[in-house]
Amino acid sequence: MGPLVGIVMGSESDLDVMKGAAEMLRQFEVEPELTIVSAHRTPGRLKVYAKKAKERGLKVIIAGAGGAAHLPGMIAAHTIIPVIGVPVKSSNSIDGWDSILSILQMPYGVPVATVALNGAKNAGILAAQILALHDTSIAGKLEAFKEYQDDIVKESAKNVKNMGFRNEFD
Amino acid sequence: MGPLVGIVMGSESDLDVMKGAAEMLRQFEVEPELTIVSAHRTPGRLKVYAKKAKERGLKVIIAGAGGAAHLPGMIAAHTIIPVIGVPVKSSNSIDGWDSILSILQMPYGVPVATVALNGAKNAGILAAQILALHDTSIAGKLEAFKEYQDDIVKESAKNVKNMGFRNEFD
Amino acid sequence: MGPLVGIVMGSESDLDVMKGAAEMLRQFEVEPELTIVSAHRTPGRLKVYAKKAKERGLKVIIAGAGGAAHLPGMIAAHTIIPVIGVPVKSSNSIDGWDSILSILQMPYGVPVATVALNGAKNAGILAAQILALHDTSIAGKLEAFKEYQDDIVKESAKNVKNMGFRNEFD
Amino acid sequence: MGPLVGIVMGSESDLDVMKGAAEMLRQFEVEPELTIVSAHRTPGRLKVYAKKAKERGLKVIIAGAGGAAHLPGMIAAHTIIPVIGVPVKSSNSIDGWDSILSILQMPYGVPVATVALNGAKNAGILAAQILALHDTSIAGKLEAFKEYQDDIVKESAKNVKNMGFRNEFD
Amino acid sequence: MGPLVGIVMGSESDLDVMKGAAEMLRQFEVEPELTIVSAHRTPGRLKVYAKKAKERGLKVIIAGAGGAAHLPGMIAAHTIIPVIGVPVKSSNSIDGWDSILSILQMPYGVPVATVALNGAKNAGILAAQILALHDTSIAGKLEAFKEYQDDIVKESAKNVKNMGFRNEFD
Amino acid sequence: MGPLVGIVMGSESDLDVMKGAAEMLRQFEVEPELTIVSAHRTPGRLKVYAKKAKERGLKVIIAGAGGAAHLPGMIAAHTIIPVIGVPVKSSNSIDGWDSILSILQMPYGVPVATVALNGAKNAGILAAQILALHDTSIAGKLEAFKEYQDDIVKESAKNVKNMGFRNEFD
Amino acid sequence: MGPLVGIVMGSESDLDVMKGAAEMLRQFEVEPELTIVSAHRTPGRLKVYAKKAKERGLKVIIAGAGGAAHLPGMIAAHTIIPVIGVPVKSSNSIDGWDSILSILQMPYGVPVATVALNGAKNAGILAAQILALHDTSIAGKLEAFKEYQDDIVKESAKNVKNMGFRNEFD
Amino acid sequence: MGPLVGIVMGSESDLDVMKGAAEMLRQFEVEPELTIVSAHRTPGRLKVYAKKAKERGLKVIIAGAGGAAHLPGMIAAHTIIPVIGVPVKSSNSIDGWDSILSILQMPYGVPVATVALNGAKNAGILAAQILALHDTSIAGKLEAFKEYQDDIVKESAKNVKNMGFRNEFD
Repeated sequence: MGPLVGIVMGSESDLDVMKGAAEMLRQFEVEPELTIVSAHRTPGRLKVYAKKAKERGLKVIIAGAGGAAHLPGMIAAHTIIPVIGVPVKSSNSIDGWDSILSILQMPYGVPVATVALNGAKNAGILAAQILALHDTSIAGKLEAFKEYQDDIVKESAKNVKNMGFRNEFD
Repeated sequence: MGPLVGIVMGSESDLDVMKGAAEMLRQFEVEPELTIVSAHRTPGRLKVYAKKAKERGLKVIIAGAGGAAHLPGMIAAHTIIPVIGVPVKSSNSIDGWDSILSILQMPYGVPVATVALNGAKNAGILAAQILALHDTSIAGKLEAFKEYQDDIVKESAKNVKNMGFRNEFD
Repeated sequence: MGPLVGIVMGSESDLDVMKGAAEMLRQFEVEPELTIVSAHRTPGRLKVYAKKAKERGLKVIIAGAGGAAHLPGMIAAHTIIPVIGVPVKSSNSIDGWDSILSILQMPYGVPVATVALNGAKNAGILAAQILALHDTSIAGKLEAFKEYQDDIVKESAKNVKNMGFRNEFD
Repeated sequence: MGPLVGIVMGSESDLDVMKGAAEMLRQFEVEPELTIVSAHRTPGRLKVYAKKAKERGLKVIIAGAGGAAHLPGMIAAHTIIPVIGVPVKSSNSIDGWDSILSILQMPYGVPVATVALNGAKNAGILAAQILALHDTSIAGKLEAFKEYQDDIVKESAKNVKNMGFRNEFD
Repeated sequence: MGPLVGIVMGSESDLDVMKGAAEMLRQFEVEPELTIVSAHRTPGRLKVYAKKAKERGLKVIIAGAGGAAHLPGMIAAHTIIPVIGVPVKSSNSIDGWDSILSILQMPYGVPVATVALNGAKNAGILAAQILALHDTSIAGKLEAFKEYQDDIVKESAKNVKNMGFRNEFD
Repeated sequence: MGPLVGIVMGSESDLDVMKGAAEMLRQFEVEPELTIVSAHRTPGRLKVYAKKAKERGLKVIIAGAGGAAHLPGMIAAHTIIPVIGVPVKSSNSIDGWDSILSILQMPYGVPVATVALNGAKNAGILAAQILALHDTSIAGKLEAFKEYQDDIVKESAKNVKNMGFRNEFD
Repeated sequence: MGPLVGIVMGSESDLDVMKGAAEMLRQFEVEPELTIVSAHRTPGRLKVYAKKAKERGLKVIIAGAGGAAHLPGMIAAHTIIPVIGVPVKSSNSIDGWDSILSILQMPYGVPVATVALNGAKNAGILAAQILALHDTSIAGKLEAFKEYQDDIVKESAKNVKNMGFRNEFD
Repeated sequence: MGPLVGIVMGSESDLDVMKGAAEMLRQFEVEPELTIVSAHRTPGRLKVYAKKAKERGLKVIIAGAGGAAHLPGMIAAHTIIPVIGVPVKSSNSIDGWDSILSILQMPYGVPVATVALNGAKNAGILAAQILALHDTSIAGKLEAFKEYQDDIVKESAKNVKNMGFRNEFD
């Protein structure tokens, strides 16, 4: 079966952040595809990627970009598949504000599901949540992941107690 | 059949913005449920709403709130259903920045799919896009909607030409 | 002769601001064309507009949009003609910051000549300045315009003196 | 006697900042408890912590978190004990703005006493000030602390004079 | 008995916002005193107010001011009583950012418990929460207030249902 | 005697704000001159104004402008007389941030004494403070003004008491 | 033949960023001139540079500066040649906001074509685009550059595939 | 003769920035005094410093502070001597915004002459400019300093030319 989730980013320099989305999806046993597509340098490639996405079987596209980040919005312009946007704090970014606002503030008619600055891992989880609506196996793994996050906090609470901080709650 | 999309908001004063999500969904013939849930004033109600969402058959929750907007994130804390967050520019908001940042900047593990400030209509479209992954009827309506948006722009181009502006492109 | 300057905007609601560009160009006896092109709703139309611009004889494209404003940058992606971007403070904008940053912060390789928020008139002047590099008639009109601005300030100085404010400089 | 002040934080990574609150309280001979509670990962733990706080004898809760920081506000949702919020500039924060706004901008009915970014030490002092309203020993220590701060400034003034800067005031 | 809570503000123009603190306190049957004290125009009056606060029996001071708001911080400089700061969005304010930052960002040693922009009502509730630590009557009223807020939300949920929105949750 | 203080502004539309500087100076019996000088439209006029300022007897120049406000800084570039800059929140301004930053953030070597957004009255007072260093009559009036401000606050305190607010301090 | 493009900057410390403009122009076989001109320290030099630019044959001026950056706007005040402004994030800058706003927000009548923060390379490309309007050789090189950018993205896509990421699109 | 300029700062950690003011004044052969005064930790010391300033012969006070910086404004509250405020980007500052806004945005009646973030050197020059109004020796040195700045730029222009950059202007 072809990939269900496509991860695209504007430049190879976004890979350090964006590979987090792939890592998370693999935790839920979803193997995404991942490639480079630039809205400004390869608008033709972008159009083909977005237009073919549905027939290729993609259910979700995760798109990350920095600065005046047009990639997520322009992919969303060409498809009805949900697009998750990841604002990347690239070197040419103004503290990330440009990436955030140019992904988040999409006009009426063309939504992008925006996650936190550099939040590629959460983008991966969100994609899994969408797939899980019709895949009980992924749903189960997401429930387990939620449990595990809960456990990590409790483990941390123990660590902190072991450091000598008073704790009469636990 | 029970509702597939739940729309919740922190206070009745958010209704003017948030009903836009319902209006859009109805365009795609999805009848959402809509109610008031406050993270800060009714944390118990919030928990029950979020915990029961999946078994009640909800596929997507759209949550809107203003100021220090904790509603979308706290619902996402309790469920694996995708949560779409709508930052509302309420009267007690600082130009909307507080709503945006407290919905968007969710930590690792608990994503919220954030849309534009007051972007409830786009939240409705995004919810429809998620449902359309397994509903060809909604998918068809979304494609038609996209066509229609395209038509509106072309109609606007004609209007502007009729106002007397030169246009040798069309 | 076909138009030398094309003015495009994302929606008819931008016309109030963007017609300022046309008004200025007419002052320099340049009759621009003006139409509606949306990056998100009509990406195909955008591509054709940008791709054909050079062969149609356009020398400059002025593109205005609000919110996550992708129009100027996406036109620039498709052409080597200079693109002047006008951030529009539309109703769905966050005080204009989103429009400014998503037009200004273009990545390496694809510049957009950005002017002030709602600065469509200055976009018109800038377009005229570019045309004037090879058109002495426009150049003369720009020089006269500059003189006239100087005169207006001196006239204002007289008005203020006539209101009774002391002025021993003039 | 059980602890009078509870210090909680969203993750172990906040400890470096948040232990400052404990250090200050110990200066006033108040031994706080300190543990990890996450609004998003352990909403159940949060609820129990907040609900039991009063009966366990806590008088003040200091809660620190970064990013979309919901911990202080959600604790305040469950208790009438004063909650002091510490915005933490975590690695996933946008210069701290997200932490500040999502703690400070609480809606009507549920206040959080917010201190400066990374201001955990001041949170500790503020907690001591509240306890001091009914504890003359702590009040005395706070008065001494204030005197000491005054002394430190005067000491600094001497240091600077000794470096050779002119000072005819002291 | 003298007042337990003192409400001060920098100018009479802050009264519209700041009287909200008094209104809330009266709901909990605490009658505060309220007057005008300006850090910049009456530094002497400020000092006397702050220095005498404790001996006059005040337990909490609520201080509101706009622009470069020094009132809360300067009162805190002179007393060990908890000071709650209310950033007021006055006419000379830059969207409230100046008020917020000059109250919130207090240096080490002198905390101010800051609430939301124009959040005088929450300042009143916070003051009541502090008093309630040693006053079971106020504590009871705060619990009742919390219940009431919960009821209001549920009432809103009914209103919205009566407007015809689907709701199968309630 | 010629004027001691020159007030200049970039456009007649700044007069509503900037006349505040003149009004304040007249309270201290200093009659300023006031005129229009634009950095961008009349750079020649600006240069002459700044260059002649000292020989014409000006002691202080107050310069107000909005948007990318270059007037105060460019006057300061041409003279060693102190220049007070007033950021004006003009219609083309982004909430005043552009005016503030382009006046305040002057590089090494060319200071501008910046006052608050629209703070023309304070600019007038500051100019009077500078003149008062060598004019005991103005100094006396400034002391009286300070007293008067103190009185106004005390008067406000009485007004508020008369409205029925408890006040056992005064 | 004299230079067609003049690159100026406020201080030698801007050279690291601003030489990017020269590098890009050389790629298009345009040899620019480059020198230091300060609006605040050498207003006379600025005026002569700008006034002589047209007769010296310059077609475009690229001006870069940081902080309260008046250089681009003041050059534009003196000439009708297009001025491209480069906001430089200098050491005395507030995250670049001051440079951006004091270059971008030019008033009516005097446009500056602003590019991204530190976007000197894009300024070089934009200058080449303007020259290319009447120089088919530069136009050809710009088209080739655009192709090359497209190739680089496709090369990156291959690199990423070679790293082992799934990619069934290419 | 006693010092004419007093430099004060909130903490010894501000010295690295603030000594720049002293260095500049010494260039103009003005020997300032310099000491530590904290608005929040030593409000009494602040009051005495400000109140005695005039009788001690001070003509200007330069005050620097970071975070919620109340020092310049509170000194200005107590004296009619011009106060120059230096926003310091201290470690507890939010990118300097808090320092800037809490110094700049002073209310009606109490101006502070604010300079750029960390602009202590410019504060020194501004103080010298004020003294120069009645001291021709300082005035002469300021004129020479201005010339020298001009020379430095021209020297830089030569350096850059020597690096091999084309320059047919000089």
